[in-house]
Amino acid sequence: MADYVLPLGRLIDSFRKLPGIGSKTATRLAFAVLNLSEEDAANFASAILESKNDIHTCPVCCNLTLEGLCPICADAERDGSMLCVVETPKDVMAFERVREYRGVYHVLGGVLSPMNGITPEMLHIKELLSRLEDDTVKEILIATNPNVEGEATASYLARLLKPFGVKISRLAYGLPVGSDLEYTDEVTLHRAIEGRRPMNG
Amino acid sequence: MADYVLPLGRLIDSFRKLPGIGSKTATRLAFAVLNLSEEDAANFASAILESKNDIHTCPVCCNLTLEGLCPICADAERDGSMLCVVETPKDVMAFERVREYRGVYHVLGGVLSPMNGITPEMLHIKELLSRLEDDTVKEILIATNPNVEGEATASYLARLLKPFGVKISRLAYGLPVGSDLEYTDEVTLHRAIEGRRPMNG
Repeated sequence: MADYVLPLGRLIDSFRKLPGIGSKTATRLAFAVLNLSEEDAANFASAILESKNDIHTCPVCCNLTLEGLCPICADAERDGSMLCVVETPKDVMAFERVREYRGVYHVLGGVLSPMNGITPEMLHIKELLSRLEDDTVKEILIATNPNVEGEATASYLARLLKPFGVKISRLAYGLPVGSDLEYTDEVTLHRAIEGRRPMNG
Repeated sequence: MADYVLPLGRLIDSFRKLPGIGSKTATRLAFAVLNLSEEDAANFASAILESKNDIHTCPVCCNLTLEGLCPICADAERDGSMLCVVETPKDVMAFERVREYRGVYHVLGGVLSPMNGITPEMLHIKELLSRLEDDTVKEILIATNPNVEGEATASYLARLLKPFGVKISRLAYGLPVGSDLEYTDEVTLHRAIEGRRPMNG
């Protein structure tokens, strides 16, 4: 970037700091910002600052919130005996979109990953254990992602939670709704056969 | 987006206003902003505002600049008799990276595109013509992109500039350096044959 348009160079550098954004995409996006309306650009900048400064994690479930308890933890209508353990706040949003689940959540903030140096101490596991002290929680649904690291984290948690005597469950593996058997991978099909359910009364 | 994290929702909306960014990517990038350091986030926001507010177009060549003439137009060492017409400021950067070209530029701000409603009046063509009034410019190199719209714009400009009696040239078509004949498309190969150059003295 020529030094006579320094702010644009800084903007390109900022975009490049986001994951999955390379040099070409960063340049394209920075030029696109120049074409935004003044209002949109001002909104963009203030949304960055407010997101970064005003959003905190809920002291109970570690989900994102503006201040104090998150609305889900603060909602007396939610079933506190059912606790769903997820990796990220995005997963909470996915669950909430289903509108079926009425329990509460616990956000781990990631998964165990020795390859990337993510150890149990770096996840919100201590906070999870402290929620089991008062016997409110009866069932823990471990909803980490269905991949190697999510699975390893689920096994680790199941072992860790066993002494507390609560029911521990895991999301079901199987065929995604609307998928096609012909194109289903072997591992998923294997899990679907393993988890088969009786149909006749 | 749940309304308890409104700034994040606004940030996702801001990312979605950029071209080529869909809902999923916007969400991913917005969460990535939360993971930036406070300094990086503040830099990102200020780079947006400064890029939008401080960057203007050069009154002569219509390239980007912070104020007044751009450094290329202001540079007395540049050859004012050679004028390269490009589509965008990004193309100027591409030329400058080559470090071979010592002439000046004119940025059209796009290409003619009847399909997208881009007419000659919407490009910086009037500014280009006014630069030919004082007979400084001897050659105009039309460096629009080698595609249908760039080619149409080049033809349009060549016709328009003919009465001024300056030399008009176009970038050469041919094989890209390091490419492979086997994988070269027919049109490029045809142009490379057409534009063949003698080798024996």
